Parts: sequence; structure tokens; C-alpha cells
Amino acid sequence: MKYCGNCGAPVELLIPAGDDRPRYICAACGSIHYQNPKLVVGCLAEFGDRILLCRRAIEPRLGLWTLPAGFMENGETVEEAAVRETAEEARARVEILSLFSVVSLPHIDQVYMLFRGRLQDDDFAPGHETLEACLFREEDIPWDELAFSSIAQTLDRYFKDRGKGFYQLHTLTIRRPMPRR
Amino acid sequence: MKYCGNCGAPVELLIPAGDDRPRYICAACGSIHYQNPKLVVGCLAEFGDRILLCRRAIEPRLGLWTLPAGFMENGETVEEAAVRETAEEARARVEILSLFSVVSLPHIDQVYMLFRGRLQDDDFAPGHETLEACLFREEDIPWDELAFSSIAQTLDRYFKDRGKGFYQLHTLTIRRPMPRR
Repeated sequence: MKYCGNCGAPVELLIPAGDDRPRYICAACGSIHYQNPKLVVGCLAEFGDRILLCRRAIEPRLGLWTLPAGFMENGETVEEAAVRETAEEARARVEILSLFSVVSLPHIDQVYMLFRGRLQDDDFAPGHETLEACLFREEDIPWDELAFSSIAQTLDRYFKDRGKGFYQLHTLTIRRPMPRR
Repeated sequence: MKYCGNCGAPVELLIPAGDDRPRYICAACGSIHYQNPKLVVGCLAEFGDRILLCRRAIEPRLGLWTLPAGFMENGETVEEAAVRETAEEARARVEILSLFSVVSLPHIDQVYMLFRGRLQDDDFAPGHETLEACLFREEDIPWDELAFSSIAQTLDRYFKDRGKGFYQLHTLTIRRPMPRR
């Protein structure tokens, strides 16, 4: 951020009075522009013993597989976000069952929330950001071609829980420092 | 948002190609400025049979009681955010036990995540944004003086679960339309 969204004047990175970390502050109008982590919400959609995966048609990780998930939008609930992402990326209708994983990725300022859900039918198709949408059995999951470690760890926990016969909530952290420029 | 944070030119509210909702777009440099919900993270900190509440020294809801909680910061995990907020608002050290509630507030674009935690000791004190910090037994909770419905509903579920002898995750939605201007 270089300019104030409120008045268009340049911003400076300074610690506001009473705060303990630098924020973008407008010298002209005094606006403080806080920056906070984004929520990525999605769905582990079951159809019998199979799980819905989408192959990405966009960067990052174009061509790799993921669960339907994306940035939560203003004005919706976390469950609505999971249903919407499943509809957008796989043209699929899903009933939300329960929150399955919460994954903090502090190096990229994201928190994933992935819900277990039940596909209403097997009538689905790739959305605009998806090359193909497919149902996978556990033994067919393309572990080496998954787009994100948050998705890989969630799927790993999911199949372990399923093997034990019950699902619990998993709160995970993935730390991967960005390469220094 | 009126001006582009990247170049300082005015932004317009338009639906980008391939999108389905209006975003702030810069006519000069083409930047799209997405706006997403914020995570509010905090702690239901237990000390024996008592729970730590803070009386707010700041608006909104100055003078009312809440759990220690606040906006998650970039670069931290959800658990670290809960520990930090408890330290900042009540000068208290807490060990995180488990995620207890996830509360969507779509009318104000917020998602609360509140963890159960165990206070390490009863050495606490009000932080800058707190008038007083106190431990409350269930029968002494100031239900009519709680700052936020997300906190009231979380405390209600907490004491019900405690009565049953086990804690589960609660995913809740609170809808309260803003008054139209």
C-alpha cells in the first residue's frame, strides 16, 4: 500500500499511538489502514466413499488438484462460503456437515476453514477456475499433484479419521518462510 | 474506498471480467481491491470454575463485559492470536485447549473464533483497552452487561456444555441487518 484509500495522499508505515506494530497511516487525513489475515473457506465434499477434487485452471498451482475453496466474501457466513465455492468451482450442490480443519498459514496471512459436506448428487462439472472436477477414492487421491499443503494435510487427517470411524476438528499450523529477496 | 492504494488514482465500483460482484477497481493502474471478512480471535480462559472477563475501556460498547478477543494480525496463527489478545487485554497467560466457537456475523463482515484456554495463574490486570479484568463464576456472569451477542452466545453454549460434562465445537451465525440510512 502506497496511497490512502480514503483521500489519495501517500501513506507512511508508522506505529500509531497506543499500538505496538507499524500500520499504514495517512499523513493527510489520519486514516489508519489495518491489514489482516484472509479466510479461505472450502469443502471436503463426500459422495459415498469418494471425495470431490478440482484441477486448477488458474495460477497459482495451475494444473494441480485441490478441494473447492476460496476467499470468503463479505456478507456471507462460513458455511455459505463453503457452499458457494463448491458451486463455483465444481458446479456442485453440497450439504454442510461439520467444520473439519482450521489451518493457519502465518507466512502468507491466511487461515483455511474446510468443512465436511455431502454432495447432493453426482451432477457436477468444472467451473471457470477449474479444468476438471472428479470424485476420488482414497487409493486414487493424487497426493503428488495436490496444489496446497493445507489441502494435503486436511485430506490426510480426513482419511485417518475415516479409518478410525469418527471425525474430529483439526486445528493445524503450516509454517513455510517466504524466500528472502 | 475512494482511491487506489497502489497508485492514488480514484477507484470505481465495477464487476471485473469473470467475476460476479462489484469490486473497487482502479481505472488508472487496473488494480482490483478485494474486501474480505475479518477474523476476531479470542479466549474463554478458565481458572478453576471461573472464567476471565474484561470490561471494555474503548468503544464500541465501552463499559460492557467481553471475553478477551480482537482482530487477528498478519503473521500469526489463530492460537497465537488468542494468546496475544488475552495477554494484551488482561495481562494474563493462557494455555490454549481447543477451538470452542466459530461465529459468523455476515452483516458486519466478521468471523469470531473463540478458544477454550486455561489460565496459568491468577496474576492478571487490565490492559490498555480494559477497565477491569475479573474472574466470574457461572452464577455471577453479567449477562445483561455483555458487550457482544457473539460473546453472550459463546458463554451460553460453554456453560451448557460444561453442565453436560463435555465440550464440542459450536458453529453459529448471528444475523442482524444494519439499519438502512
